[in-house]
Formats: sequence, C-alpha cells, structure tokens
Amino acid sequence: MIPTLEWLPTGVNFLDQTKLPLEETYVLATSYQEVATVIRDMIVRGAPAIGVSAAMGVAIGIDRSKTTTLDALTAEVDVICDTLAATRPTAVNLFWGIGRIRDLYNRLVEGGADIATIKKAVVEEACQMYDEDIAACKQMGAHGAALMPKTGTVLTHCNAGALATCGYGSALGVIRAAIERGHTIDVLADETRPFLQGARLTAWELMKDNIQTTVLCDNMAGHLMSKGRIQAVIVGADRIAANGDTANKIGTYSVSILAKEHGIPFYVAAPWSTIDLATLTGDGIPIEQRAATEVTHSNGKQMTPDGVGIENPAFDVTPAKYVTAIITERGILRAPYEESIRAMTAQEQPILRS
Amino acid sequence: MIPTLEWLPTGVNFLDQTKLPLEETYVLATSYQEVATVIRDMIVRGAPAIGVSAAMGVAIGIDRSKTTTLDALTAEVDVICDTLAATRPTAVNLFWGIGRIRDLYNRLVEGGADIATIKKAVVEEACQMYDEDIAACKQMGAHGAALMPKTGTVLTHCNAGALATCGYGSALGVIRAAIERGHTIDVLADETRPFLQGARLTAWELMKDNIQTTVLCDNMAGHLMSKGRIQAVIVGADRIAANGDTANKIGTYSVSILAKEHGIPFYVAAPWSTIDLATLTGDGIPIEQRAATEVTHSNGKQMTPDGVGIENPAFDVTPAKYVTAIITERGILRAPYEESIRAMTAQEQPILRS
Repeated sequence: MIPTLEWLPTGVNFLDQTKLPLEETYVLATSYQEVATVIRDMIVRGAPAIGVSAAMGVAIGIDRSKTTTLDALTAEVDVICDTLAATRPTAVNLFWGIGRIRDLYNRLVEGGADIATIKKAVVEEACQMYDEDIAACKQMGAHGAALMPKTGTVLTHCNAGALATCGYGSALGVIRAAIERGHTIDVLADETRPFLQGARLTAWELMKDNIQTTVLCDNMAGHLMSKGRIQAVIVGADRIAANGDTANKIGTYSVSILAKEHGIPFYVAAPWSTIDLATLTGDGIPIEQRAATEVTHSNGKQMTPDGVGIENPAFDVTPAKYVTAIITERGILRAPYEESIRAMTAQEQPILRS
Repeated sequence: MIPTLEWLPTGVNFLDQTKLPLEETYVLATSYQEVATVIRDMIVRGAPAIGVSAAMGVAIGIDRSKTTTLDALTAEVDVICDTLAATRPTAVNLFWGIGRIRDLYNRLVEGGADIATIKKAVVEEACQMYDEDIAACKQMGAHGAALMPKTGTVLTHCNAGALATCGYGSALGVIRAAIERGHTIDVLADETRPFLQGARLTAWELMKDNIQTTVLCDNMAGHLMSKGRIQAVIVGADRIAANGDTANKIGTYSVSILAKEHGIPFYVAAPWSTIDLATLTGDGIPIEQRAATEVTHSNGKQMTPDGVGIENPAFDVTPAKYVTAIITERGILRAPYEESIRAMTAQEQPILRS
C-alpha cells in the first residue's frame, strides 16, 4: 500500500510527491497551517487526496486548538476553513472535505457537545473519510474494470492513482482492478508538463505494482494513437459539473479530442465527491494559474529567454461530449450526463468500507 | 541577422543551439566528420539548415582532402556522403543537400575538371545554397504573409525560424513578413518537449526581433484554442510527401487535429527542397527515434523511475487533410496536394537571390 497520507498521533504524515520518484521522504504536518502549505506546494496533490487532506487539516486544527470556549473555537474554525479553502481553487473535493468536517462541527455544536467530544468526533470523521476514499476507489475499479480492454494499452494523463487518493487510485484503480480480473494491460503515461506527475508519480506507483509502463511526452499521444497503439484513455477529475463537463489536469482536453478523432474511448474515473452539482457547466469551474517558474525552469536551470511571456493554467475543461463514460463508486454514468448524474444523486447509497 | 551557420575560411561555424537561450557560443567544424557530429548532436537542427549544413559538410570534406588522384577523391566522396547521410533520417533536406554537391561533383568529373577546380566549385555551390535558402525564406514570407491574421495570435510548434534555416525562417519567416507588412501578431510558442526548441529557440529568436512571444507547454494549446486565443497555426516541415502528408517535429500531428476541431487554419511553411516526390505518402517517411535520456533526464537529473519504458519519436506525420495550405518559395500549395505539387514541380522556377 502506497502511503500517500496518514493520520498519526503526531500529525498528518504526507509522502512528499515533489521528491518522487528518486526520493521517498515524508513531511509531517502538525498544524492546519502546515497542512495548507502541503496542499499549496503540491507535496500532496490529486483531487481525492486533497479532499481528505483538507478534512484532516480542519480536524487537526480543531484537535490542536488551545481555546477553552466554544465561541472562541468556532471563530478559530472559521479561520481554519478559510485558510485551507484558499490553497487551491479547482478541485471541488477540497471544499467538499472542508465542508464535511465543518458541517459535522456545526451539528455537534448545535447538539450541545463539549469541546473534547467535538475534537474526538472530527478526527474520527476525517479518518472515516480516508477509509471511504479507498473503498470508493476499489468500487470504481469494480465498476470500471469491464470497460478496459481485455488486452491492450491504456493511456493516462497526469496521476489519478494511489498517490492522488488515499490509496488504489481512481483512473489507475480501474486499471489495477482490470488487471486483477485477468486483463492484460500495459500503460502509457503522459509525462504531464510542467509538474511531470505522469513521468514521476504514475510511472513510480505502477512500476511498484509491476504494471508495464511507458512514459511519453505529452505531444506524442496523437502519433501513437494514429499507429493503433492505444485502445483506451482513462483519466481522473478535479471537478465534474452537473452536465458532465470535466476539469482535470491541463492537457486532458487535448487528449480527449485526439481520442475522439481516432475513435478511442475516453473515460473519466472519479469519486462522487468530485461531482459539483452547484456548478452547472464547465464554464463555471475556476482554473488555477500557477507560477511561471514551473514552465521556465527545470531542476533550477532557466530554459527560456529572459522576459518571455508564460502560460501556466493547471487545469482545463473537457466538455461532456468528449467523455465516453464517467466511472464513480456509485456506478457508471453515461450521456446525457445531466440526467444520469441527477438520477444517481437521487439513489440511496450504500456505505462503503475499505 | 542570426548566425545559424556560416562558411568561414577556417571551417563551418555553427551557433550551438543546444546551449541557447542562456549561452551564445559557437562550434567550428573543420572536417566533414565534425559537421556530421554537429548535425547528429543537434548543435544545428531544422530541416533547411540541416540541408545546407550537409552540403557544406560534403564541400569541406572535398576541399580538405589530401588525395592527389581523382579516383581516390571519388572514393573519399562516397565515404563523406555516406557519413553525412547517416546522421539523421527524417529531414529529406539532408539528402537533398548531400545530393546536390554530389551531383555537381559527378558532373565536374565527367567534364574533365581537375581537383583544384572541383574544390573551388563545390565550396561555391554550398555557399550558393546558403544564399538560396535565405532567399527562399524571404519568398515564403512574401507568399504567406497574407494568410496570417491582420491582428491576432499565431501558434507555432518547435522552431521553424532563422535558427532552423540559414536565416529569416520558414514558418517564423512568414510571421516576420506579415509583421513587416503591418500585421499585429503575437506568437504562442509550444515549448516542444523533449528538446524544448520552442521554449529555448523560437522564444529566443523572436524576442531578439521584439516580437511578442509567450511560451506554453505542449499540452496547453487545446485549452487556449477553446478560449479563442489562437487565430492560426504555422509550422515548418522535415519532409513533405508527394501527396502533401507532412513530417514535422513530434506533436505537430496533435496540433493539426486540435486546429481542425476548433476551426483554426493550419499552415506548413517549407522550402521546395523539403518536398520529396519519391515518397508518395507519409507512410513512407522514416521516423527517427532518439535516445530515452532526452525524456528521462532534465538538466542532468533523472525525472522518471528506473527501468520505466520510454517513447521518444522525434517526428510525426500530419496527413494532408489537416493542412490548410503549404507555403513554399514557389507559391502556395492547396489541396488536392498531389495535383498542386505536381503542377508547381513542372513550372520553370526563377533563380532567387538573397
């Protein structure tokens, strides 16, 4: 099991994803501020992992509070939630994770719970969310495995694996589940500039599982599709609008168009917490712009001339029309997504245990 | 004028493109073997520049020969041509450049010329090809300028500029010519992994000319197209088959599909020497595979886990159906390309002077 993040008595322990694949080191966050820094600096990344990390951030903030009155604690919780919410704008799981602990806190306060009870309950809730995330990944795998080719090559972009979740992965979880069920699959991993999540993280975790993996530059996928080298594409998601429009790592949109042009199915795998019913279409999803230095510099060396302009949007939106199916722990969504999402929202959901 | 390459009494002087944009250093090749190394190591790159470099390589090989008989010289010329032909497989200009000096050599031998006369003539021919290349770029600019938007943003991939030719550039020459004729154009330059010709070379030479330039990762172009940020695409070519299928830097094919999907014109600019009538379709164009370390390492640091597979094709083929027009020094080619290329081949051509 890849230890993406873990609640410990001493704090929240994160595998430092900025150091992979060559160094396997950990960062222990002992305050909500440190959790916020870990999220902002992409020591942890991936929408589902960000969601649980943020929940643990709120929980550690409440748990470590030294205040003795509920009013003071509530004021602190406002600050804690605002701090964590300001880390990254695109992944809706961040707000979902914060909101779930915040809602529990509010209910406990309304119910007359004391501070000690609240502290215990929010920590338990965050740990429960961790377990649920792994269970959701396994369930996505169970639903999605049959969509994967019996024998063939699957392209993925960025990292929607164990490292992007609490374990097993969303997109890579579906690949793992297919292989566990006897499919013969090898993976092409887009390197995913500028942060190289594919080259560094997807390649690292798949090779740990002895899954045959080949890294390519992002600009090579179309060429390999034209040669018949890719049978399916599967990616994760950072936010899915109510109509199925899907925000994911920059470049996903281009891959979806290439897949359509070559008649290759394009799947999205994401936990239900990634679906944002309050955002009606992809136009409403905020796109994070990150620092120019991610593009201009490589291992400390400047690669571009001084003063050149730089684009660095971290995400793009793939319109629902390019998405063959969305795989969630509740089941597989198909177009028209507005209807299938609404129908599945209304269903009563079983509690998943990892 | 950017000094991509230059014939000097001491040898062929090359701007070292592996060191740009931070260092402007030169490599003086004093033998045909050194010219071959310069081409193979991509100290010079870009199909038209490779063509003239190879011609100068054959010329320097003949010029510096110490043999005293024509038979011995002819045997040497075979080795010289074979050595230079083995450097890079995709750009047809390489073989065109070698062939033009070789043909002249054969004619001179058949005509009874002595060694001194031959040496002088082949050096003059190589220098003449240099002048013609610049003149061809200017002529491509004159033909293609009107195709560029009056006001807007043009995306380019890789470097088809002054650095890829003997000066002025093919694709970037068209942009330069449009700006000289009063168009207001800014350029988006795909960084072009793994060798970063866009980030390093296109950005460097356009900024020298005060042309507003923004670098983006290759996976961002689709997103910017969807936002209406790109009005045209123009790229160079390494080989154009008789039916218009165009080999160019890896990633060009993907850009052409993205352009089509967004209704954006996609232009190729290349000197006539890039058209290979002997290759009927893109399927016949050999695609160079380069070393895995170009992808796995960045500034000496390993970015991928040990043992992962790597794809590194240096070129891809854009089918003619995605190409809006091909701009050459002879004029603008339109589909059906098989016919327009054949018609323009048959035309008598004026001699161009730079």
